[in-house]
Formats: sequence, structure tokens, C-alpha cells
Amino acid sequence: MSAATTLDRAAVERIVREIVVGRSPGGAAAASTEDVADSNLVVSISARHCHLTDAHVERLFGPGQTLTPMRELYQQGFYAAEQTVMLVGPRRRMLPNVRVLGPTRPHSQVELAFTDAISLGIDAPVRASGKIEGTPGCVLVGPHGVVELDEGVIRAERHVHMDFRHAESYGVDNGDRMNLRIRSGTCSVVLEDLLVRADATSKLEVHIDTDEGNACDLDHAESVELLLTEKPCSCH
Amino acid sequence: MSAATTLDRAAVERIVREIVVGRSPGGAAAASTEDVADSNLVVSISARHCHLTDAHVERLFGPGQTLTPMRELYQQGFYAAEQTVMLVGPRRRMLPNVRVLGPTRPHSQVELAFTDAISLGIDAPVRASGKIEGTPGCVLVGPHGVVELDEGVIRAERHVHMDFRHAESYGVDNGDRMNLRIRSGTCSVVLEDLLVRADATSKLEVHIDTDEGNACDLDHAESVELLLTEKPCSCH
Repeated sequence: MSAATTLDRAAVERIVREIVVGRSPGGAAAASTEDVADSNLVVSISARHCHLTDAHVERLFGPGQTLTPMRELYQQGFYAAEQTVMLVGPRRRMLPNVRVLGPTRPHSQVELAFTDAISLGIDAPVRASGKIEGTPGCVLVGPHGVVELDEGVIRAERHVHMDFRHAESYGVDNGDRMNLRIRSGTCSVVLEDLLVRADATSKLEVHIDTDEGNACDLDHAESVELLLTEKPCSCH
Repeated sequence: MSAATTLDRAAVERIVREIVVGRSPGGAAAASTEDVADSNLVVSISARHCHLTDAHVERLFGPGQTLTPMRELYQQGFYAAEQTVMLVGPRRRMLPNVRVLGPTRPHSQVELAFTDAISLGIDAPVRASGKIEGTPGCVLVGPHGVVELDEGVIRAERHVHMDFRHAESYGVDNGDRMNLRIRSGTCSVVLEDLLVRADATSKLEVHIDTDEGNACDLDHAESVELLLTEKPCSCH
């Protein structure tokens, strides 16, 4: 009863693209730094982290302080900083060492997995990075001072970075959605509706969070594929 | 380019079965107790928990002690006990309050999400319940005493309980695999290869862990469907 046989072979090959598995680095930083060819897909797990404004860096770490790059991320120009902050939730529950990612941004933002947010007692909404209007806040504690965020705590929406060349080859535009299939022992999943973030320079890389990465045991995955969301069958 | 139109309508309806979303109870206990009709599917999140032997109950809680039911689980005869234990990993990291589920069993077993296992420093394998040969151990600490488990720490393989009537209606046998699709905002997933555990009396219920439940935000899911794993298209 397979309907695949009724699909044109070329159409199937346009939909399904076999790619290389990017392993998460583990630990607190946010993205894989593996050196893979641009044409291969990297899937990176973003562990909980925060982005800060220049003013908040000074408030937390001291006047005149700036972020110190500790490790380059896979996307050019981005890095895990040496600095970490303590995150405190509304019921004085806390996470002691949350990595700061650089460079600094116009708005501070905290990105948590739901498991993290629940442990802090924060009802974090799923948002694209930067869309923080109306989201919950929290308290950031650094070695020099404290920042009380009124908003900015989100679960980052799963997404895939790519350049326009990759977008054209997949037949998608910036803002479209794609599916990601991860084959992994008996933990295989299809993560649906990844937001496509296409620009002139980004490398091909999916960002998922620790809940998603742990759900499918990404560290031991056998393969990953990006799929178009146009549904060629009833099972999607 | 939808291939669904080439599928016989009855075949589609045999594959796709719309069902009711079971919400997780939150908190430390293991499964939903919602009262839904047997013909509807319940998806329950099993938070970290353990099963104990009679001897281990006495060692942890005192001579002559037995488990005290606190809340009935959805599957008849099973319950979250009032008792909890502290779990200690190999590097003296710990989880303070892990729920005990009853009734007691011939072998003690600890079921963790990967997020829990990583926080304890335990490399937990994915196993079907009861298949604990060669798995890591841990230390259980109760108010009366301590149990050092040589093995038994697993991530429980995602599975679906059902009775033979449901199995026949899905066209599956005990030990087969099915897929579960969860539609949930921009967090939708297909969890693949759920183990079918069919017997004479079980209610229709999927068990997933907190990583899987958080990956798809099950608490806010719009629908769940059980799908046959026979792949009618290229996208699975």
C-alpha cells in the first residue's frame, strides 16, 4: 500500500535530501563548532543561554566590561562568551550558570528549554528570536550586579539557518517552514514546522533545544534530513 | 503534488485515527488519570520515577513497610505511591524526590528522561521496561536506609498500551511499532517506532517521557494520532 511508488522519482529526490549529522558539543554552550562543508546540514542543540545588551553586560560584570569570546559558534561571528549569569525565577528557584552568547544585542533575551523553564517556574512561550513583546521576565545575577528583565524569557522556536543558495535549492523562502527528520535508534522523530531563516551569509544549520535533542537522542543519531512541509501523503 | 489523492480513502482512514489528547498531570507522578473512554487515545508523560521490589521497600522505608497508594494511574491497578526516594549518581549529583510507582515488582528499576540522566551523570540506555541487563546502576536513599542498585537505570522506550481489540482494529500485534503524531502550535512532532504493548486488559495509552512531552509542548497540543509505520510515502 505504499504511495511512494506513485510519486515521480525526481520529486522524491527534491523532497528528501540526505545530510550529515552535526553533534552537539554537550555542556553549556549553544551550538556545534564542527567543521563540515557548507553543503551538509548541521543540527545543533542550543542549551539554555542568554543574549545581553552592552548596558546589561556592564551592569552584571562591571563598568567598562565587555564579553570575552570563549568558543566560536558554527555561524560566523557568533561565540559563547566566558561569562555566565545566574538566572532566578519568580519563586526564587534558580539556574546557577547560564552561558552568555555574543555579540551583544539591542535587547537582552533568555532562551530556555521547557524543562529549564518549568524548573524555574516560568511559563515560557515559544517565540522566534527577538520577538519578546509580552514574554515573562526573570532576574539575572552577575558578579558585579543584578538585572531585572521585565520580558525576554522564551523558548526559541526551532529553526534552520541557510543562505539564499540553499533556500533556492530547497525551493523555500525566508519565513517558510520545513520538517526535520532525525533517525536515531528507537527514538526517531520528525520535528515539524522549523522556521526557515535565510539570508546572504548563514551556513546551513538547524537549531533545536535540549528537550528536542534529548527526545531523539541526537548525539547518537544515524542521519538527519530536511523535508518540505508540502505533504505528499496522509501521514503528515 | 499531494500523493494523498492517489491513496484509497478507506486506506487513509485506516492509517489515520483522530484521537483525544491526554494531558500530563504535571508534577512528579507518572501518568494521567483523566477519565476518557477506552476508545480514545490518552498520551501520558511519565516523569522520572522508580519501581521497587518488596525487599527494597523495606530497606528504604523500614521493616514491614509497604507502598501507600497516593493516586491511581490511568492503567488499572497501578498507582503513584506516597513514597519518594533520593537518587544519587556516580559523581554524587542527586535528584531529591523521585516518585515510587506501585505495585512492587520482581526487580527494581529507575526510569529517567535523558535530561535527568545527564544531570546525574548517568549514561542511561533506551530500554523496554524490565530489560535492564547490563544497564547502569545508582544509589537510592530513603528515610530508613540505602539501596545500591547494580543495574536498572534506563530511559523507558516510548510505547503504547492497548488491548487486543484495539490492536486488531489498528492491524498491529504485540511487539510491533507505530508512529505518534502530535500537532502542537509550532512544536508539532512525529514520534516514530513506539513499541506496541498489547494484552487482554490494558487501556489505550501512550507513554512518553518529559523530554518528549516538552519537545512538543504536549500540555498545549491540539491533537494526537497513532499511525502505522508502513510508510506510504517518502517523507517517513
